Amino acid sequence: MSSGVQLSFTIGWIAMLLGGVLFWLSSRRLPPLEKRHGVAAMTIVFVAFANYLAMALGQGDIFFNDRTVYFARYTDWVITTPILLASLAMFAGRSLGRIATLLAALIAADVYMIVTGLVGNLSSAPYNYYWWVISMMAFLVVLVLVWGPLRRHAEEDGQIAPYSKLAGMLTALWVCYPIVWLAGSSGASIISVTVESWLYLVLDVTAKVGFGAVALNAARQSRTR
Amino acid sequence: MSSGVQLSFTIGWIAMLLGGVLFWLSSRRLPPLEKRHGVAAMTIVFVAFANYLAMALGQGDIFFNDRTVYFARYTDWVITTPILLASLAMFAGRSLGRIATLLAALIAADVYMIVTGLVGNLSSAPYNYYWWVISMMAFLVVLVLVWGPLRRHAEEDGQIAPYSKLAGMLTALWVCYPIVWLAGSSGASIISVTVESWLYLVLDVTAKVGFGAVALNAARQSRTR
Ligand SMILES: CC1=C(/C=C/C(C)=C/C=C/C(C)=C/C=O)C(C)(C)CCC1
Ligand SMILES: CC1=C(/C=C/C(C)=C/C=C/C(C)=C/C=O)C(C)(C)CCC1
Repeated sequence: MSSGVQLSFTIGWIAMLLGGVLFWLSSRRLPPLEKRHGVAAMTIVFVAFANYLAMALGQGDIFFNDRTVYFARYTDWVITTPILLASLAMFAGRSLGRIATLLAALIAADVYMIVTGLVGNLSSAPYNYYWWVISMMAFLVVLVLVWGPLRRHAEEDGQIAPYSKLAGMLTALWVCYPIVWLAGSSGASIISVTVESWLYLVLDVTAKVGFGAVALNAARQSRTR
Repeated sequence: MSSGVQLSFTIGWIAMLLGGVLFWLSSRRLPPLEKRHGVAAMTIVFVAFANYLAMALGQGDIFFNDRTVYFARYTDWVITTPILLASLAMFAGRSLGRIATLLAALIAADVYMIVTGLVGNLSSAPYNYYWWVISMMAFLVVLVLVWGPLRRHAEEDGQIAPYSKLAGMLTALWVCYPIVWLAGSSGASIISVTVESWLYLVLDVTAKVGFGAVALNAARQSRTR
């Protein structure tokens, strides 16, 4: 592992740990009914912490089909992205139970996206590109659900202002992942492994710690309900 | 596999099977609203039965990093410990739905504890100790939630007498696991693999069959509610 890649992993686990401390402190000021936002945010960063630590210790990669696959990225994403969608969905309704079917559909498409992405990363060309396309289809389903039915729920039963803000943030950040994937070692290798790992780092920290901070802030303001 | 280890696995699956029969019989006498305790107790022992059987058949271990890892212990624990916490939580409120956030936090910390424990068992020194520390942090979160917020719920809305008894039993038994782990083949190898497997056997049977028997007994007495 090059030292640039190594450094990105070390910064990764430290950033996630700091995010965890931050969320723990700000969760204490949440009204009881909104504690769920704090539980979600903390679970996300602590899972990412463990996966970044594993990668930093050299335990999160495997050499397969002539290239190093950082499978710990996927074990991170497969757990954290469903929780990220659940925390968005918490602004779409007072209780997740009332949107259970929609949330199940979202999570199914999302997990499908991550798992097919991992299969693609373990495949040699041109198969990796087939899997990218399949994973993209699932990603489109996620986006359609976020901007269609889930958004309508937020208008009727939820809090549309924070919902829209977070959905916009989520979309802007998440679309970068398949681009990095395609440009990086899992795709055409246009960028170096070091650049790839720094791009993922910036995305992961923003999509987890940044997103969580915005979500917790919005949840605190919904105190008055 | 030494014959002492083998014997502990055989006794393990027999004990879990007997526990299942016992719980099935005593579930029939539960009042309808308390059948949930029977479902939890039976699920726990039948999952453990399957994992002990797999280990007895030589299907529950893998040779990795120069040592035998009984991964079936973790596939057991990762399913059964959340259900054990749920069955404790059933005494903290009339419906688990009302403590959903708290239960989600408990289960997140608990699953985190087991998965990082497995990663530690698959790691060589000194990394195994790092994972042990991380797993212990999650375990502390579990204990803090059990003795703090969940206990307060039991006082207000649940049945505090059986709750305290079971929380005490759970704490006393669960704290032994990280000690055995540290002393055993996953840690410093101070005790032999045979002693380790017998210690886990005693703990598993007590924490599942013993705990379940106490829980079902308490649930039967809450008939009068
Ligand atoms: C569409 C697509 C992908 C999408 C990944 C996404 C959207 C990941 C999001 C991760 C987040 C948000 C992590 C942490 O916060 C992959 C798997 C790269 C594979 C190629 C196709
Ligand atoms: C803290 C800690 C651990 C805790 C394990 C526990 C608490 C297991 C409980 C199992 C039960 C109760 C099983 C069946 O009934 C591990 C994973 C050994 C790894 C080292 C750190």
